[in-house]
Amino acid sequence: MYLHVQRLIHDIVADEPDPAAANALQEGLGGQFGEMRTMMQYLFQSMNFRGAAAKPYRDLLQGIGTEEISHVELIGTTISRLLDGSPRYNGKKTDPLDTPGAGGDTPLRLALDEGNIHHYLVAAQGALPVDSAGNPWSGSYVYNSGNLVLDLLYNLMLESTGRLQKCRIYEMTENKTARSTISYLIVRDQAHENAYAKALETLGVDWGKLLPIPKTNAEKFPEVKKLVDLGLQSKQYTFDLTGLSEAGKIFRGMSPSNDGTELDASEQAPEGVPSTIADERFEEFAPGLDPELLSLIQATADIEMAEVQPVYGPVEPTKGS
Amino acid sequence: MYLHVQRLIHDIVADEPDPAAANALQEGLGGQFGEMRTMMQYLFQSMNFRGAAAKPYRDLLQGIGTEEISHVELIGTTISRLLDGSPRYNGKKTDPLDTPGAGGDTPLRLALDEGNIHHYLVAAQGALPVDSAGNPWSGSYVYNSGNLVLDLLYNLMLESTGRLQKCRIYEMTENKTARSTISYLIVRDQAHENAYAKALETLGVDWGKLLPIPKTNAEKFPEVKKLVDLGLQSKQYTFDLTGLSEAGKIFRGMSPSNDGTELDASEQAPEGVPSTIADERFEEFAPGLDPELLSLIQATADIEMAEVQPVYGPVEPTKGS
Amino acid sequence: MYLHVQRLIHDIVADEPDPAAANALQEGLGGQFGEMRTMMQYLFQSMNFRGAAAKPYRDLLQGIGTEEISHVELIGTTISRLLDGSPRYNGKKTDPLDTPGAGGDTPLRLALDEGNIHHYLVAAQGALPVDSAGNPWSGSYVYNSGNLVLDLLYNLMLESTGRLQKCRIYEMTENKTARSTISYLIVRDQAHENAYAKALETLGVDWGKLLPIPKTNAEKFPEVKKLVDLGLQSKQYTFDLTGLSEAGKIFRGMSPSNDGTELDASEQAPEGVPSTIADERFEEFAPGLDPELLSLIQATADIEMAEVQPVYGPVEPTKGS
Amino acid sequence: MYLHVQRLIHDIVADEPDPAAANALQEGLGGQFGEMRTMMQYLFQSMNFRGAAAKPYRDLLQGIGTEEISHVELIGTTISRLLDGSPRYNGKKTDPLDTPGAGGDTPLRLALDEGNIHHYLVAAQGALPVDSAGNPWSGSYVYNSGNLVLDLLYNLMLESTGRLQKCRIYEMTENKTARSTISYLIVRDQAHENAYAKALETLGVDWGKLLPIPKTNAEKFPEVKKLVDLGLQSKQYTFDLTGLSEAGKIFRGMSPSNDGTELDASEQAPEGVPSTIADERFEEFAPGLDPELLSLIQATADIEMAEVQPVYGPVEPTKGS
Amino acid sequence: MYLHVQRLIHDIVADEPDPAAANALQEGLGGQFGEMRTMMQYLFQSMNFRGAAAKPYRDLLQGIGTEEISHVELIGTTISRLLDGSPRYNGKKTDPLDTPGAGGDTPLRLALDEGNIHHYLVAAQGALPVDSAGNPWSGSYVYNSGNLVLDLLYNLMLESTGRLQKCRIYEMTENKTARSTISYLIVRDQAHENAYAKALETLGVDWGKLLPIPKTNAEKFPEVKKLVDLGLQSKQYTFDLTGLSEAGKIFRGMSPSNDGTELDASEQAPEGVPSTIADERFEEFAPGLDPELLSLIQATADIEMAEVQPVYGPVEPTKGS
Amino acid sequence: MYLHVQRLIHDIVADEPDPAAANALQEGLGGQFGEMRTMMQYLFQSMNFRGAAAKPYRDLLQGIGTEEISHVELIGTTISRLLDGSPRYNGKKTDPLDTPGAGGDTPLRLALDEGNIHHYLVAAQGALPVDSAGNPWSGSYVYNSGNLVLDLLYNLMLESTGRLQKCRIYEMTENKTARSTISYLIVRDQAHENAYAKALETLGVDWGKLLPIPKTNAEKFPEVKKLVDLGLQSKQYTFDLTGLSEAGKIFRGMSPSNDGTELDASEQAPEGVPSTIADERFEEFAPGLDPELLSLIQATADIEMAEVQPVYGPVEPTKGS
Repeated sequence: MYLHVQRLIHDIVADEPDPAAANALQEGLGGQFGEMRTMMQYLFQSMNFRGAAAKPYRDLLQGIGTEEISHVELIGTTISRLLDGSPRYNGKKTDPLDTPGAGGDTPLRLALDEGNIHHYLVAAQGALPVDSAGNPWSGSYVYNSGNLVLDLLYNLMLESTGRLQKCRIYEMTENKTARSTISYLIVRDQAHENAYAKALETLGVDWGKLLPIPKTNAEKFPEVKKLVDLGLQSKQYTFDLTGLSEAGKIFRGMSPSNDGTELDASEQAPEGVPSTIADERFEEFAPGLDPELLSLIQATADIEMAEVQPVYGPVEPTKGS
Repeated sequence: MYLHVQRLIHDIVADEPDPAAANALQEGLGGQFGEMRTMMQYLFQSMNFRGAAAKPYRDLLQGIGTEEISHVELIGTTISRLLDGSPRYNGKKTDPLDTPGAGGDTPLRLALDEGNIHHYLVAAQGALPVDSAGNPWSGSYVYNSGNLVLDLLYNLMLESTGRLQKCRIYEMTENKTARSTISYLIVRDQAHENAYAKALETLGVDWGKLLPIPKTNAEKFPEVKKLVDLGLQSKQYTFDLTGLSEAGKIFRGMSPSNDGTELDASEQAPEGVPSTIADERFEEFAPGLDPELLSLIQATADIEMAEVQPVYGPVEPTKGS
Repeated sequence: MYLHVQRLIHDIVADEPDPAAANALQEGLGGQFGEMRTMMQYLFQSMNFRGAAAKPYRDLLQGIGTEEISHVELIGTTISRLLDGSPRYNGKKTDPLDTPGAGGDTPLRLALDEGNIHHYLVAAQGALPVDSAGNPWSGSYVYNSGNLVLDLLYNLMLESTGRLQKCRIYEMTENKTARSTISYLIVRDQAHENAYAKALETLGVDWGKLLPIPKTNAEKFPEVKKLVDLGLQSKQYTFDLTGLSEAGKIFRGMSPSNDGTELDASEQAPEGVPSTIADERFEEFAPGLDPELLSLIQATADIEMAEVQPVYGPVEPTKGS
Repeated sequence: MYLHVQRLIHDIVADEPDPAAANALQEGLGGQFGEMRTMMQYLFQSMNFRGAAAKPYRDLLQGIGTEEISHVELIGTTISRLLDGSPRYNGKKTDPLDTPGAGGDTPLRLALDEGNIHHYLVAAQGALPVDSAGNPWSGSYVYNSGNLVLDLLYNLMLESTGRLQKCRIYEMTENKTARSTISYLIVRDQAHENAYAKALETLGVDWGKLLPIPKTNAEKFPEVKKLVDLGLQSKQYTFDLTGLSEAGKIFRGMSPSNDGTELDASEQAPEGVPSTIADERFEEFAPGLDPELLSLIQATADIEMAEVQPVYGPVEPTKGS
Repeated sequence: MYLHVQRLIHDIVADEPDPAAANALQEGLGGQFGEMRTMMQYLFQSMNFRGAAAKPYRDLLQGIGTEEISHVELIGTTISRLLDGSPRYNGKKTDPLDTPGAGGDTPLRLALDEGNIHHYLVAAQGALPVDSAGNPWSGSYVYNSGNLVLDLLYNLMLESTGRLQKCRIYEMTENKTARSTISYLIVRDQAHENAYAKALETLGVDWGKLLPIPKTNAEKFPEVKKLVDLGLQSKQYTFDLTGLSEAGKIFRGMSPSNDGTELDASEQAPEGVPSTIADERFEEFAPGLDPELLSLIQATADIEMAEVQPVYGPVEPTKGS
Repeated sequence: MYLHVQRLIHDIVADEPDPAAANALQEGLGGQFGEMRTMMQYLFQSMNFRGAAAKPYRDLLQGIGTEEISHVELIGTTISRLLDGSPRYNGKKTDPLDTPGAGGDTPLRLALDEGNIHHYLVAAQGALPVDSAGNPWSGSYVYNSGNLVLDLLYNLMLESTGRLQKCRIYEMTENKTARSTISYLIVRDQAHENAYAKALETLGVDWGKLLPIPKTNAEKFPEVKKLVDLGLQSKQYTFDLTGLSEAGKIFRGMSPSNDGTELDASEQAPEGVPSTIADERFEEFAPGLDPELLSLIQATADIEMAEVQPVYGPVEPTKGS
């Protein structure tokens, strides 16, 4: 069972809208090696897991899989922010439609030239479950062989490929919003790469100097370096509210990435940052333009709400933090 | 951000393996109107949501979306249990391969006759991200128009269709494992149907006698009736650890399903039941047959684990419950 | 622009339900060489057609394409009839659900064993836009090269392949409902094969003894022979209400199929037979089980309707025929 | 059974070629909420329809479904016109190939920069059965649950979403050819939205102020306003030649869109406008460049045609209009 | 550039037709981890290879990729043989159609019950480019990251997974035709697994006891054991006619599979066995039933052929061997 | 069984990188009418072939199919060359990352604007198994009806369509690298078109003036004309090392393309040209940036290799030619 925290797992840095960068980031969300895939793959591997004696491996998969849901949330929100407002349409509520936008263009003219037209035509300047070439995410991506060693080997390759592609995305854009999220995911992918490499070490493999893959200068990207200096590539959270996770039996000892750090699984979750709600976009008819409905919604928002009974954790502690 | 509880959201009743029933349940997992779809659809609608004034609607989507992840976990695990052991292969570790199983058949002969051969050939008697006809789940299923009214209308139709299909699955099998999970999901789909119908009511719609759809005798299925008598179709949890959810501003008042109950959103989450790990399946080479690796895994399992620092909730309270 | 006649283009012979035959017929509806494909291919070739001097070829495509819509209607309805009632469920309105059907089975048990489970789980014993292996119809099937000669060559091959596959379906079942529709479509496919072959003859090709393909004994199937004796393989209707079709400039002279008949395009359309509406299926919740909604529907049915103003043809003549 | 009229259901206004607009319009043709989808969905819902008492609903579906075929024809032809001639290639028959086009470019250079390269490489400056992101149309789009209420609810949402997307396309381009067809389809989508909303009203729903969705200022787009002033959003044709349609039992009374108009189903079909055939495009080898074949085609065109025997309507009346 | 030898890379043992086994083998041909995939993956990795210093790795990929084409040919032919004649139809040329077959059934009745109906309806009792669940092979399967280490890691996992699935297929059937080909491919997959594992060893990895995966008793399957005893799992051919392959620089030394053998790359290719052509199948209209065409074909076969000039190798040596 | 020659079947002319042209060429590689499709289609038609009396037709298919593998290699390599270096990134090994490239851009900025972003993000400036619109190659493209006449008719249409599309690609770009490979494939497609047309002639068809299709001035493209003057459109190699091919019994006599040449099948294979290995691309992390791994690879390259035993042809003859 899963619970949600109304906070993002990592901060998103503000910058100008950038639909081309948004489209590149779609690979990290809905691509064959993106976050939707890792999330679903580890969720299936956890559900179908066999062998009580191997529970630490199951818990490692379950914990990383839970983190990936938050990564979907993070990169999806980042894409939305990169798209939001990109048409530079300046419509006011009083006269919203068909008024020329920046440069005299029709309000959504930009959609014909940039990235994926579906970002405007279908998704109202929001994220889509597709890759950067527009292919919808497919269940056929999920790998779960039933053989633990093969699953671990695949996962190692999967995290490395995800990181490789994110390094390339970093090289495609200077947009700070895009780079900050990509950098965070690069470091977390490396943490997961370390997790699977270490799991294979417990089964006898000695990686020598092979890891990480790519063994790049990516650590020198300023945003990445900052997080690596904090040791984020060597930390794995349990994301577990029951205290039953045994992932720490595997994720410990020297990092297989040869950076001299020690792996640490002693934290439940990062603190996160507050999440916000985007503005209405009238040129997308989303959700706007209807005063009567807006007033009904506002009426709903003004009603007092019953107090919720907590079962799985404090309802208050992070509120307002 | 999401956290996980090592408990299933609802109990799975034990019965004989039944691969044909398992395959029918795949529609509820990876089908166009299954749990992977509702989960992803509400997750995307939450991420891309617009309009701070409409936060109660966002929180309703977010809460239901979080529940759907637990539904994916529940129905996926149910499918695994229905498949697990279905070949009736009696191989022992000392002589595991190619020994005739029940009826003198080869160990996996059953795979050629029942449901989806991939359940044995690809997934090692585990769940797959596909529907009951074998189509992989597709990102093109996700609907998120950006227009709040349309999204709510779609979600209402989606939950009703999901429930309709689950009623049909109930009519296909007498297997208790299958029926218990299907019945739980029928009732929860109705709760979500109520949620979206009520949200549209706040925008002025009067449904008259139209709901629920199907307006069936399904409530008379014994397993369903038991849960309806508990009022589970009129309850919606927040699944929120931050206490910020405003879903209760919508999910309250008389049920739009005309059953005389009042909607209630005052609980955080159900208590759930402990989850277990399936046995090894040697005829699938999953994960078994390798004494050396098994002993390495056992060695890992015997090591003491560091204590985890809780951030978002008690690590202990539900342990052992 | 298109108009509809509430009649089927050919009669459907009654026989027992047969879901396996229904599934085989799906190839003829939603398969790569089925009626949805021919319909869409000729519709696109007509819309994108170039060259006023070649209008007779455009009109030939347009006329055959219009006929294919009626074929979709015919084979879809045939599939529905083959599925309808196949579970042999005997539920009454007063106690409709979960009552054992024939053999003591659950009402929809059959769905687990026969053809495509989606026929029961998704389509409520109705036709689906998929092929006999369950693949959804795809727009990538449509061929329209822009080069008239290539389009005609492709269409000839397409009709021949469609007929080849229908001959194989005929060999798969003895069900009279299935065989009657398949036989009609075999003969009409041959008429279209003749049309494209003749069109290529006008461009200089001499087919020698090559046609028809397959050059089989299929004409000896009793249902096929009856239609061939009527000359239906050498007749092409215009399906044109404007009287502007020039298809007859091509479809005339000796048949390229070497059967000694002369091609004839002097009729507008076949007379057709009245179509009927299927019964409700309570075990599918389609649409039944809701007395209140049923009475509302009945109320609608009892209201007098305004008289329609005909624009494109007599509203009365075929009524009651 | 269907018949064809060699007229377009609505006029296409002339303007410059515009391949980017053509690509945006593909969403309205082959997109998930485009005309191919509505056409196929209503055709399947009509074929698989259950319950003779509900015939008025079936006839409503059948009538709208028939109109959608004409919409496919209209938007497909519009896309062809927007593409046709876009490369500005000025090849003459005497020396057609590889001669630099406008700006000294190779004849099809434009294909590398604009919209969907397949418009030039595959479709010879013609329409394709794909959406604006290049995804082929899929049979998995078609929704037909067998439950009448759900089908009506889905159709309402489908028409509203189609209209929403077309409003966005309108905002993307100023091309008059694109805007004229899009505007006509916006108004017709609203007529269909009204039809399904009214059908649900007959089953007891009161929509309040919810409709139409989007409740936009789209009616203020000049091309849309002109058609709304004619009441086209409140009119539904039967497209039925047999005079058996009972759709008028539902489509009547006050419009659920709150515009004060009354619904009217008393006309068979719009008059339409004559359709024309596009020019040859030598740079596409479509169909041109072959003097011998051209003379053979011309010879065919010069032959007298036999007179057609009308069965379902006058061959003459609209000829020449 | 590639050349062909009219010989199969390994013998196919004769046994009864078995369409269910044929369908299971489709996973090994057109599945995500089948021979079409390995073939295409290594072909793309070879074409896109970077780094002249790494040529031995390129040559290893090229050599294995070339072998996979022969594996496609082998398993495809095996599937054809398992299907061929399975309907037990006894039609004679003189009266071929619609004559009841074994058990009084229609000639192709079997198609409705067994494996993939397309084997009879589309492929005329021949192999298809699909997997065992009927999914068409997809280009999205091909992995080629551009990073040599990742490609090698993926290939190791790919070969291991392919072997895992083939071990499961072996457990599904006792048919000797199926088992003989599967066993050969199991051993060759292990040779390729060794190749990629050894390539990673040259980059510093020590696999310990991890390989092979699955580390099973599969070597005890009699057909597999026979080939392992011949050392076929430790041999890699160059399949290179130019003598430029440097694959032997990698594929040498002790096997990473811990079986005590030494890797050997000193042979160009196996000798192979003569291939044969299947019989006509009249019930499939393939290609039969047309005496005139058959006599034309026979006439062609009787004509003398010009002598071919060899460029890349002896035309004679293996003839008759 | 297949063997490989480390030579390309035709030379690739050098020119500037051109990612837009590379993307257009993808249609010829992974498109519905590209080389992967012809290769797979003829390979399946060869494996599933029926009728020993028709062996010359099988051998014709087998020989052309083998050639198509070399065409995949040629066009794939051409695409790689067109992409390679296109970002104009000037990074040095000592400081490779994030250094602005030409125009001050980030190293991979180009990926956001040109052709298919996957060329940079997924394929590291290499070819992909997709078409020019980004659709992955699909097994559903392969046509193999089992009926010889239909297969030949389809293949004729397939080769003509492939050539038509390549003529259009030629019209899209002036890049010499692209045009040289496209021109070679245009001429070879025509040779194959002749092969299938001639095969149908042996079965009685007289094509008159219909062929080739398109009957264009394409022969006047300078690069094409040069090859046509050499008669390459009338020559078919056997690509057969066993000397058993009987393709020459069909491919002989006057060309059906009406160019006055005689068909010739007396050569085994073209000589080809040496192939080379592309440079490393550090900005793609492919494979570069890791001094330790590079030195290990170099160490491997320096080791002496055992001599290979030739079985199917001389290891030496073309070496150094």
